[in-house]
Amino acid sequence: MKITDLAITPIAFADPPLLNATGVHEPLALRTVVQLHVADGVVGLGEGSGELVVLERLARVRPALVGQSVFDTSAIEAIVFAELGNDVPPIQKRSVFSIIEVACLDAQGKLLGLPVVDLLGGAVRQTVTYSGYLFYKWAGHPGQAADEWGEALDPAGLVAQAARMIDLHGFGSLKLKGGVFPPDQEIAAVRALAEAFPGIPLRIDPNGAWSVATSQYVAAELAGVLEYLEDPTLTTPAMAQVAAAASMPLATNMCVVSPETVPEAIRLGAVQIVLSDHHYWGGLRHTRELGALCATFGLGLSMHSNSHLGISLAAMTHVAAATPNLAYACDTHYPWNSGDDVITVPFEFADGALRVPAGPGLGVELDEAKLFRLHRQYVASGRTTRADTAYLRQVDPAYDPSLPRF
Amino acid sequence: MKITDLAITPIAFADPPLLNATGVHEPLALRTVVQLHVADGVVGLGEGSGELVVLERLARVRPALVGQSVFDTSAIEAIVFAELGNDVPPIQKRSVFSIIEVACLDAQGKLLGLPVVDLLGGAVRQTVTYSGYLFYKWAGHPGQAADEWGEALDPAGLVAQAARMIDLHGFGSLKLKGGVFPPDQEIAAVRALAEAFPGIPLRIDPNGAWSVATSQYVAAELAGVLEYLEDPTLTTPAMAQVAAAASMPLATNMCVVSPETVPEAIRLGAVQIVLSDHHYWGGLRHTRELGALCATFGLGLSMHSNSHLGISLAAMTHVAAATPNLAYACDTHYPWNSGDDVITVPFEFADGALRVPAGPGLGVELDEAKLFRLHRQYVASGRTTRADTAYLRQVDPAYDPSLPRF
Ligand SMILES: [Mg+2]
Ligand SMILES: [Mg+2]
Repeated sequence: MKITDLAITPIAFADPPLLNATGVHEPLALRTVVQLHVADGVVGLGEGSGELVVLERLARVRPALVGQSVFDTSAIEAIVFAELGNDVPPIQKRSVFSIIEVACLDAQGKLLGLPVVDLLGGAVRQTVTYSGYLFYKWAGHPGQAADEWGEALDPAGLVAQAARMIDLHGFGSLKLKGGVFPPDQEIAAVRALAEAFPGIPLRIDPNGAWSVATSQYVAAELAGVLEYLEDPTLTTPAMAQVAAAASMPLATNMCVVSPETVPEAIRLGAVQIVLSDHHYWGGLRHTRELGALCATFGLGLSMHSNSHLGISLAAMTHVAAATPNLAYACDTHYPWNSGDDVITVPFEFADGALRVPAGPGLGVELDEAKLFRLHRQYVASGRTTRADTAYLRQVDPAYDPSLPRF
Repeated sequence: MKITDLAITPIAFADPPLLNATGVHEPLALRTVVQLHVADGVVGLGEGSGELVVLERLARVRPALVGQSVFDTSAIEAIVFAELGNDVPPIQKRSVFSIIEVACLDAQGKLLGLPVVDLLGGAVRQTVTYSGYLFYKWAGHPGQAADEWGEALDPAGLVAQAARMIDLHGFGSLKLKGGVFPPDQEIAAVRALAEAFPGIPLRIDPNGAWSVATSQYVAAELAGVLEYLEDPTLTTPAMAQVAAAASMPLATNMCVVSPETVPEAIRLGAVQIVLSDHHYWGGLRHTRELGALCATFGLGLSMHSNSHLGISLAAMTHVAAATPNLAYACDTHYPWNSGDDVITVPFEFADGALRVPAGPGLGVELDEAKLFRLHRQYVASGRTTRADTAYLRQVDPAYDPSLPRF
């Protein structure tokens, strides 16, 4: 079954002012939706980064996809790599290919009448558990009214945010995006969460904002409190130094981000849990391979998220359901979208989990009107890239995102 | 699509007296063929070890397969592992599961109208290259006339065997099963092959018959002559000692045989090439994962073989076609079967390669009459296990297979 075309649509959707170590989320998050057309009117959906460079690269590989069998994803991967040439690093090639691979698998499932999970070895679980993703945030974007979530700049604000998150979606574990305030404030926040929600697994992820010494200090302070400590510091050797002293496992989506980065991390014992992300690892089949690699080396497996919509959430859910050792609740930004989506029936969490869509394919349907609205919003925004630092500097011109911050 | 039954048929087929480090092949090689029945009359084929213990284990898991979706191979793997219990080592559980997984994928392909390779990401090559597998051998089994291959007990005999192998099948690389004669004789044989077939890649595999010192000696003697040196010595640390001194890459299907054995081999740099075998690694999808693991760690990938028939050869060819970094010619015993097979149209090599069967499924059809004949042969033989050492001792009662032999 041949590919006849790839439609590439950049979109922008509303995003609250979520703080992180490099700045703050802008009012619009950018994303790309692809529609992979195959013969017989079947269309496969994919979603990924909305960065201009990704759009350009998708456009560059598009002609070479036409005429390929939608079942030949390995050959398509080779084509994508060849078309993008040697000046594009492998990890960025994988980001482009992953969008296409998901669309191919969606189309395959639709052609075959199978859910994507069945193309990956079948479901080993019927529901996939997600964690509640907490952020320090402003009440609203500068110059705008407070959003439905309100301000969260201290422990009490985060506890209130967590309570709302759990009330709305039933999450049974919580992750705090850290690296925003001095570590003692974030330690206090984690402790407040532990006190407010006793027994609930807690994680903190400062995105490498801490020095090794600071990381070791936080690890000691939060011993017995954290399920895992995510990317406290940058670079694999530094993570290894922290891991050697920390009582809890270290997790990462920053130092292990590609096959190229695996050997050093294993050699140094730098991390105990890898956060998979099919967008970076080159699609769902390569994510399954990452799962096998983690099982081989006794590493835990969790899942990373960036701001995303329902096509990606469907893909995340299918691959998580197919991956036996994905034992941790997955990250997702989805609850921050305020219902904005491009699919006809947005996902709703029940007890912090999603049922694996029944398919066929990803089991989600594109809402063309919503896609058009979010595309118009993209065009009107004039935006082409994510710029958390620049946006924060509109409020705090002196903001320095250099890492480690603390 | 639910599994309704699994028919398990042990068979025996004629095998020449091929010598190896533990003895000699008996007149009959044992194998198991499974027919996985799913609704709608579709039957998936699988093939694997004919050892009695494997038959017993297949029978043990059979009831639990009934009612499972043929697409849920990961769930079926978990069922197989659970049914076999903790007393069966994981690698032996994988040997049982692999037979079932291949049958599931064959049935999936038949249900979907797709070749198995398309369930694995599609073909990255249309033909799969095999190597000519040379053996020291007697002219015929004791008490029987010489077979069509005749005797090969010295360099001239092996060169003649190789010439016939290349003439019949067009192989472009050669592997010698060693560990039979003192190393200097085998070195002379490899040199004779190199002289007779200049430029053709050569391998030797003594199955761990050599000490570290002997292995280092052979490696030095055959520097520049071998494509790779396969399992010269037993144990991963010993392989690492040989690898440190050898100029050619070391390959293995004896020290890296399962996920459990991977970390040590990588840590010690013990091998440079892993010989995959879907029968040991738990099926075709796990073989793809092994390929990804090898790519991640910069290891080469080749493929191992035991005596097998066409169902396994089809499975080997599909997974090899789907695995980008399977860059070496694969091993196969198939040319030694003298046309004995259970499929309607036995494979024929062209230029040492096979086209990937077009499917659906594995793309081979069971010949029930042939299966019945080979099953009767199995029953009549009274055999239940492979016993190369005992068979050799009928000729040479003093034969000692203890390793290292040299
Ligand atoms: Mg992270
Ligand atoms: Mg071998």
